[in-house]
Amino acid sequence: MFKFHMPTKVIVGENCVTTNPQELIIGTRALIVTGKSSGKKSGALDDVISVLENEKIPYHVYDKVENNPEINDMIKGGIFARECQADFIISIGGGSPMDAAKAIGVYATNEVNEGFQPYDIFTGKYKNKPLPMVAIPTTSGTGSEVTPYSILTLHKEKTKRSFSCVDCFFKTAFLDGRYTISLPLQVARNTAVDAMCHLIEGYTNKKASPSSDYMALEGLRIIGKHLNALENGNLDINACTELLWASSLGGIVISQTGTTIVHSMGYALTYFCDIPHGMANGYLVYEYLKRVDSVRVSNCLCALGIKSLENFKEYLKKILPRVRNFNEKEIIDWSEISIKARNVASCPYEVTREMEIEIYKSSLM
Amino acid sequence: MFKFHMPTKVIVGENCVTTNPQELIIGTRALIVTGKSSGKKSGALDDVISVLENEKIPYHVYDKVENNPEINDMIKGGIFARECQADFIISIGGGSPMDAAKAIGVYATNEVNEGFQPYDIFTGKYKNKPLPMVAIPTTSGTGSEVTPYSILTLHKEKTKRSFSCVDCFFKTAFLDGRYTISLPLQVARNTAVDAMCHLIEGYTNKKASPSSDYMALEGLRIIGKHLNALENGNLDINACTELLWASSLGGIVISQTGTTIVHSMGYALTYFCDIPHGMANGYLVYEYLKRVDSVRVSNCLCALGIKSLENFKEYLKKILPRVRNFNEKEIIDWSEISIKARNVASCPYEVTREMEIEIYKSSLM
Repeated sequence: MFKFHMPTKVIVGENCVTTNPQELIIGTRALIVTGKSSGKKSGALDDVISVLENEKIPYHVYDKVENNPEINDMIKGGIFARECQADFIISIGGGSPMDAAKAIGVYATNEVNEGFQPYDIFTGKYKNKPLPMVAIPTTSGTGSEVTPYSILTLHKEKTKRSFSCVDCFFKTAFLDGRYTISLPLQVARNTAVDAMCHLIEGYTNKKASPSSDYMALEGLRIIGKHLNALENGNLDINACTELLWASSLGGIVISQTGTTIVHSMGYALTYFCDIPHGMANGYLVYEYLKRVDSVRVSNCLCALGIKSLENFKEYLKKILPRVRNFNEKEIIDWSEISIKARNVASCPYEVTREMEIEIYKSSLM
Repeated sequence: MFKFHMPTKVIVGENCVTTNPQELIIGTRALIVTGKSSGKKSGALDDVISVLENEKIPYHVYDKVENNPEINDMIKGGIFARECQADFIISIGGGSPMDAAKAIGVYATNEVNEGFQPYDIFTGKYKNKPLPMVAIPTTSGTGSEVTPYSILTLHKEKTKRSFSCVDCFFKTAFLDGRYTISLPLQVARNTAVDAMCHLIEGYTNKKASPSSDYMALEGLRIIGKHLNALENGNLDINACTELLWASSLGGIVISQTGTTIVHSMGYALTYFCDIPHGMANGYLVYEYLKRVDSVRVSNCLCALGIKSLENFKEYLKKILPRVRNFNEKEIIDWSEISIKARNVASCPYEVTREMEIEIYKSSLM
């Protein structure tokens, strides 16, 4: 038995925000959730504000979202949303602002008190539906604009943890390549590799199904068209729009399948070493794939237009520089955390802590 | 700019109705909308009733839906729904019961009176949201389980007319090959050809886009796997389930692109000659494709695994018998109606009434 569910309306193309005001404005008072700079630099925030002012919709901007949002900041965001009396959220940014919007949306309508503790968000124990939301991604990696997932950082557990909530699907996602075209090249590469990993991990996942497989391969075909441009740094508006769409396909795929150990092992690199999420996945994906059934691997490589797994490794090495050295002691520590992740069970093969240590070592040392 | 929107949750697999009661029961009093026999013969009605009785949900059955539902019967269905105080609809059947459910859902919450005339359904002028609905297809052709469309017969205009309403998307669609496996072979063929036409018309459509193309080709690949079984009549449970999924892909595709003249010209054959909808489309699709850009046609044929357009024509001839002779006079009459259809504009080439007459003649005489 398999399922497919992705209720978000996706609108793809240049100026899709300003030409679809009725899809952007889904309430009477907006809270814009964004990072410190992504909304402004991309031009998306200006577009959103121009639509809101044109339609005389009052709004507040919450631009305190850090990379890898932390749960306490989300609770503060929820309080701010209530103070503003916002009745819908516009999220602008990469994975962090979009994941943050989902959590803020839940905390906005569910005040933290005796009956609703902060961590209850992970078990779905909230009473009220979150605020309705729309999303405008400014990177093409996370796919969060089309998933019910939000990944939050927990300092207590020294890792990330996700919650999933069907009411957290954005009503609409606006994909405009104009918002990603001026990204620093390394950010464009990291995020494209993140999208690639979603597609690969979805396609090789134990939960892969006829409703996710063809999407995963389509996403990989699209990214494959732009591998040279990602290497050479000549991404044009067409490439940017296509990469956004491929990234959404990745999001739709992992909404059905979840991810694998590439993601759960990568979290440690991000949490402890501040290595960007997509780059961390990119470091690990080759060693993950080496252990996967060869037909599925061949199909991924064929869709990407890459001849062999070794060539794939070489390509990743070229676009993802090593930003730090790693030692055995820390690897052993990380494996203790990452082996507990839920998506270990979604791997197409059995994973032990020893195997994770091996994968970390071969990937990083 | 392109869009993608398909909020229905699709659950595919054997016994998906009985194993997902929480997805089937989306209210407190059910109205089951079905045809005279499809619900019973397929076994779907028994499964639904067993779930409802198990969960102690009161229900009524409205099994008066004829093939090609007529608008006045829909209004009666709406009155019946109000009398039963139903707050959700379970639709079981082929295209007719599913299209009927959408219309009955609208008329149930919007009483026909001075402010709301019967034909206002086509312009979306109703105030209240339709009843929430779920669908259980018992043929694999229409794709109606995943579209916002409902196609009704209008005796006054001697044709069919559709309405589209985002609130008419079913909440969940249950695809179980057990419900189609005992279909008469000719019905299985006609409906598979209908699905094939949705995929082909979507892929060759003027509104085709990156969000519909890969789905269309995937649907055609699946149908292509079962062409022999459709010819020889040995469809097993796996083939039936896959054809249901391909049919849903066709529905998702035409939700984005709409259909073409194959459909609008086919309506006349159904309305005036009682030729089944899929069979009518199958008569016409070769002549439609002959006029389409050759790359798109090749891609469709390649996905189906058919060597040439001539082979495609031969295949359709084998599985779709001619049930009647046609004459020039009636063809000229039909073209007068069909040239007015909205989907004429979605054709990838300019269509004149003369061309439609030519296509009718070459296809039918």
